[in-house]
Amino acid sequence: MPSQPSKTLETFDNPMPERDYTIRIEVPEFTCLCPKTGQPDFATLYLEYVPEAKCVELKSLKMYVWAYRDEGAFHEKVTNTILDDLVKATEPRFMRLTAKFNVRGGIYTSVVAEHRQSGWQAPEAVTLP
Amino acid sequence: MPSQPSKTLETFDNPMPERDYTIRIEVPEFTCLCPKTGQPDFATLYLEYVPEAKCVELKSLKMYVWAYRDEGAFHEKVTNTILDDLVKATEPRFMRLTAKFNVRGGIYTSVVAEHRQSGWQAPEAVTLP
Amino acid sequence: MPSQPSKTLETFDNPMPERDYTIRIEVPEFTCLCPKTGQPDFATLYLEYVPEAKCVELKSLKMYVWAYRDEGAFHEKVTNTILDDLVKATEPRFMRLTAKFNVRGGIYTSVVAEHRQSGWQAPEAVTLP
Amino acid sequence: MPSQPSKTLETFDNPMPERDYTIRIEVPEFTCLCPKTGQPDFATLYLEYVPEAKCVELKSLKMYVWAYRDEGAFHEKVTNTILDDLVKATEPRFMRLTAKFNVRGGIYTSVVAEHRQSGWQAPEAVTLP
Amino acid sequence: MPSQPSKTLETFDNPMPERDYTIRIEVPEFTCLCPKTGQPDFATLYLEYVPEAKCVELKSLKMYVWAYRDEGAFHEKVTNTILDDLVKATEPRFMRLTAKFNVRGGIYTSVVAEHRQSGWQAPEAVTLP
Amino acid sequence: MPSQPSKTLETFDNPMPERDYTIRIEVPEFTCLCPKTGQPDFATLYLEYVPEAKCVELKSLKMYVWAYRDEGAFHEKVTNTILDDLVKATEPRFMRLTAKFNVRGGIYTSVVAEHRQSGWQAPEAVTLP
Amino acid sequence: MPSQPSKTLETFDNPMPERDYTIRIEVPEFTCLCPKTGQPDFATLYLEYVPEAKCVELKSLKMYVWAYRDEGAFHEKVTNTILDDLVKATEPRFMRLTAKFNVRGGIYTSVVAEHRQSGWQAPEAVTLP
Amino acid sequence: MPSQPSKTLETFDNPMPERDYTIRIEVPEFTCLCPKTGQPDFATLYLEYVPEAKCVELKSLKMYVWAYRDEGAFHEKVTNTILDDLVKATEPRFMRLTAKFNVRGGIYTSVVAEHRQSGWQAPEAVTLP
Amino acid sequence: MPSQPSKTLETFDNPMPERDYTIRIEVPEFTCLCPKTGQPDFATLYLEYVPEAKCVELKSLKMYVWAYRDEGAFHEKVTNTILDDLVKATEPRFMRLTAKFNVRGGIYTSVVAEHRQSGWQAPEAVTLP
Amino acid sequence: MPSQPSKTLETFDNPMPERDYTIRIEVPEFTCLCPKTGQPDFATLYLEYVPEAKCVELKSLKMYVWAYRDEGAFHEKVTNTILDDLVKATEPRFMRLTAKFNVRGGIYTSVVAEHRQSGWQAPEAVTLP
Ligand SMILES: [Ca+2]
Ligand SMILES: [Ca+2]
Ligand SMILES: [Ca+2]
Ligand SMILES: [Ca+2]
Ligand SMILES: [Ca+2]
Ligand SMILES: [Ca+2]
Ligand SMILES: [Ca+2]
Ligand SMILES: [Ca+2]
Ligand SMILES: [Ca+2]
Ligand SMILES: [Ca+2]
Ligand SMILES: [Ca+2]
Ligand SMILES: [Ca+2]
Ligand SMILES: [Ca+2]
Ligand SMILES: [Ca+2]
Ligand SMILES: [Ca+2]
Ligand SMILES: [Ca+2]
Repeated sequence: MPSQPSKTLETFDNPMPERDYTIRIEVPEFTCLCPKTGQPDFATLYLEYVPEAKCVELKSLKMYVWAYRDEGAFHEKVTNTILDDLVKATEPRFMRLTAKFNVRGGIYTSVVAEHRQSGWQAPEAVTLP
Repeated sequence: MPSQPSKTLETFDNPMPERDYTIRIEVPEFTCLCPKTGQPDFATLYLEYVPEAKCVELKSLKMYVWAYRDEGAFHEKVTNTILDDLVKATEPRFMRLTAKFNVRGGIYTSVVAEHRQSGWQAPEAVTLP
Repeated sequence: MPSQPSKTLETFDNPMPERDYTIRIEVPEFTCLCPKTGQPDFATLYLEYVPEAKCVELKSLKMYVWAYRDEGAFHEKVTNTILDDLVKATEPRFMRLTAKFNVRGGIYTSVVAEHRQSGWQAPEAVTLP
Repeated sequence: MPSQPSKTLETFDNPMPERDYTIRIEVPEFTCLCPKTGQPDFATLYLEYVPEAKCVELKSLKMYVWAYRDEGAFHEKVTNTILDDLVKATEPRFMRLTAKFNVRGGIYTSVVAEHRQSGWQAPEAVTLP
Repeated sequence: MPSQPSKTLETFDNPMPERDYTIRIEVPEFTCLCPKTGQPDFATLYLEYVPEAKCVELKSLKMYVWAYRDEGAFHEKVTNTILDDLVKATEPRFMRLTAKFNVRGGIYTSVVAEHRQSGWQAPEAVTLP
Repeated sequence: MPSQPSKTLETFDNPMPERDYTIRIEVPEFTCLCPKTGQPDFATLYLEYVPEAKCVELKSLKMYVWAYRDEGAFHEKVTNTILDDLVKATEPRFMRLTAKFNVRGGIYTSVVAEHRQSGWQAPEAVTLP
Repeated sequence: MPSQPSKTLETFDNPMPERDYTIRIEVPEFTCLCPKTGQPDFATLYLEYVPEAKCVELKSLKMYVWAYRDEGAFHEKVTNTILDDLVKATEPRFMRLTAKFNVRGGIYTSVVAEHRQSGWQAPEAVTLP
Repeated sequence: MPSQPSKTLETFDNPMPERDYTIRIEVPEFTCLCPKTGQPDFATLYLEYVPEAKCVELKSLKMYVWAYRDEGAFHEKVTNTILDDLVKATEPRFMRLTAKFNVRGGIYTSVVAEHRQSGWQAPEAVTLP
Repeated sequence: MPSQPSKTLETFDNPMPERDYTIRIEVPEFTCLCPKTGQPDFATLYLEYVPEAKCVELKSLKMYVWAYRDEGAFHEKVTNTILDDLVKATEPRFMRLTAKFNVRGGIYTSVVAEHRQSGWQAPEAVTLP
Repeated sequence: MPSQPSKTLETFDNPMPERDYTIRIEVPEFTCLCPKTGQPDFATLYLEYVPEAKCVELKSLKMYVWAYRDEGAFHEKVTNTILDDLVKATEPRFMRLTAKFNVRGGIYTSVVAEHRQSGWQAPEAVTLP
């Protein structure tokens, strides 16, 4: 049975909730439609987050991204929306989403949005020499 | 009015048919569907050709590529088919199409196919030091 | 009807004004004239900003950049002027413009200027390990 | 049901047997055991071939590569053996296998072997300027 | 006698315990099994730490990594577990482990976890111009 | 007095006409106008030639390239025309011009054209190991 | 009339003194003589500064750099001297000079020196995600 | 007379002791012997320091590095020892030594150690946009 | 028992003598002494060969390379000598040795030498598109 | 006693005249003066040759290159002259000189010239797969 695109994001239990740690995910195959021209747009998504109780399940993330294939979406709006959906599904301590869109009209655009859990403090960054 | 995907390839007159010269075109945004899983596949297309009477028009090439967005297509078959369509539309002296597909199952695949006009000889390659 | 160069920058509503987020835009095709020699100069522009109520519309940005094609412009002055125009049009929370000019006389020059809205504080940077 | 490693290579019909064309496959995840020390060895495999009637099926190729995970194998021998297995399965017009092994003892090794069908001539290479 | 995989991590005395200094270790050859599919997973491990009394012995680290070859392991869990084992063996002032996994389903994942000794303060970072 | 764009190509005497040798020139700052949209196009020109009696003077080449700044020009036509002008001015033994145009509509195009003096044979290429 | 090397640095008025902004200049063609051996030394200079009332004029900077062609100069001393000369000429808010010298005796050396105007504070760095 | 390896580090007077500035030195040709196996080890050394009254003389540094050619040396110990010797010879305000060793057993190791003069404060880092 | 440098090259039986295939070996850690100055020289060796009956054993190659550590050797001579020793030990169908020496006096040198068995013809090169 | 620039090229006996082999030399520090403007020009020289009885001595080559520091020289002429001088000094079987000049007027130029001994045939190139 072929798989289906779906906006439902599935999660699994964070195996180490007592530690702030980082998960980074790169999705090079995001595509949607330009609301103005109807033509396809393409982007690479970069997600990084500190999980609380839940981690995003990768296969459902792939189906979620696929679900934008036939939707019209503006760069700035869709980046914020995907972040919101991921935050809603995983309720992370911190999450950042970067979308780097392919060149259009000779111009390169990317959008970066972040969510921070109320009251959460990033662990003090240790910069080793 | 939004533009539409279309398998119709348009051409324009080769402005210099008396000379064998090379046109190279890179299309990083090819996407189709995997006939086995139904999931999206992605590739970059590299086209190089020596035109005879006709050159492929770039905007129609973009619409042509777009037309694969909802089609199931195997890597080896679709590369040969696109080459055949481009050859039929432009009747070039020589044409080569390379499709580099994105990694699947940890494996990277690309396919390269060529067409040569009957009786056409490539100009003797000049390798300058 | 062919499009025209124009110094008018158009904007659209920021779809997520309640969040500080980043938009990055790269324009590799800036060209103007050197006021001393009259000869063409070339640069790549890198814009990054945190929008308030308005985002710069990309097509009008392209026309805006085009409008410098026949103008004489010094490196330091034109970078500051373009920043000022973009700030005036979009009234962002923060904006930074970098212009990397092509080599002249064996010397490479770039200019970077910033605007910060009065009273705006950058969100605390989260550096994940 | 979890999948299994297997030395059985599956094939599918070449969709364009009337044309000499090239299929390239990169497998970055080959691992076997060193027959001398018993420790793991790692390599990237690069396969390129001109199919005749059959193409190698990618999922079975992945299972085939997996089947070396617990086998002892010398660099030179295993490269030739994998080529022989692939030739036997697909009977190609031409096939080349390159194995680049990870550094051992401060020394980098790779092995390249080819098979050419009796009587087959490579299409005359067209080098466009 | 061939060597053996082993989860036992050996250490040697830190030759300079009176100074906070950094040891960085890159292990490009981590492989385990996916608990869902049973198929091999691959990653590169990046370890950096400030030793207290003990440093991890490299050959035993190699045997330790080897011991995961036939184990099922989730990305997030195994990264935290390896860090815990290394912390237990060496009791460092600070330790960070990054695991960059190979692409699966077109998605790239990496996980980063840190341990900091209670009461330890990172030396003030000196950023020379 | 400011310099001026000019289609006049100046030459100087080849200082070593008794030897076939190669001169390579890269011009990263070609810009013209798209005849369809009126908008600026950009390309990098790569010229390589074996001179006979005359070499192209670099400053006049710069002025020549500048002269396209306000002209409409199709990619394929303009590459062939510039080659023809350079051949007419310098009457070289061999000349090749490559124009790599900036991305338009998500598609990258380049054009390569050559001229060979009647009866001239390229020196036998020496490939040293 | 051929131009001449000269230690005189010329300046022009900063077109935007009310704003702290950055000018970066790279000079790949610095050469002087080694005081010990008399042989030529080579370096690339990287200058970055925040101007106050004056900016350094690029052509005079080129002539200034040229003036070291016949002078003996130690790496550490000459980097500090050039910085001092540039500070004296332009009285900037901040200036940093990096000199990366070519390898000598198998060893690569670079020197970095800074000047900060008394009482000047760098604008708070904004690190956008 | 051929030169000789020597552990004696020579210095020269810092030409600008009134300014905190940075000297960076890269030595790609460090080699010693592994105390366990007797076999050669190789590393690249990266030194960066802020001199006080003395700078290290490069030729003597080369002879010093040469003196390790026939010595057994552990990675962690030798990095700290070389730093100590350089600190003793030059008494710098700050010094950092990084040693990146060649791969051994499929594992890459580097060691970084620092010395800071008692009471010395690094100049406030200026990060220009 | 620690291992020892040795000029004795050991071999093993070519597992596939009926096929012309290529073995490539890179040795980044060659060091000898300059006969003029007595100082260490460094090079990377690149070996590629088509074996006949024997292949060079890697560990003995490592010991062989180690044996040059205390020998004086000119670049051109030592490259030819190492090739001769390897040819004598393995009697290959074809062998090529490239030695890339580290920069000396600001000049980079490499030497490439080949041996071809009398009567051996290289397999016709197949250049796939 | 400081060394001196000199146009005298010294040679040493080819240690392996019975074999055609390749010596490659890269000189990144060529500088001369532009005959039109008097200003310095810079280039990297790439020399490759098959020696007959004599090899060029590297230190004398360095002094030879140095001797152009105060001379006016056109790109095309000086490349051919240096080749002629090297041919005269070493009488090689084959020699090729490439000079890549630094950008001037936004244009990059390089010149390549070859000498082949009368009657010498390049060894048949062996292209291993
Ligand atoms: Ca993009
Ligand atoms: Ca892609
Ligand atoms: Ca691919
Ligand atoms: Ca620039
Ligand atoms: Ca390898
Ligand atoms: Ca590998
Ligand atoms: Ca990864
Ligand atoms: Ca990997
Ligand atoms: Ca460009
Ligand atoms: Ca292009
Ligand atoms: Ca340097
Ligand atoms: Ca290393
Ligand atoms: Ca090296
Ligand atoms: Ca070298
Ligand atoms: Ca240079
Ligand atoms: Ca150049």
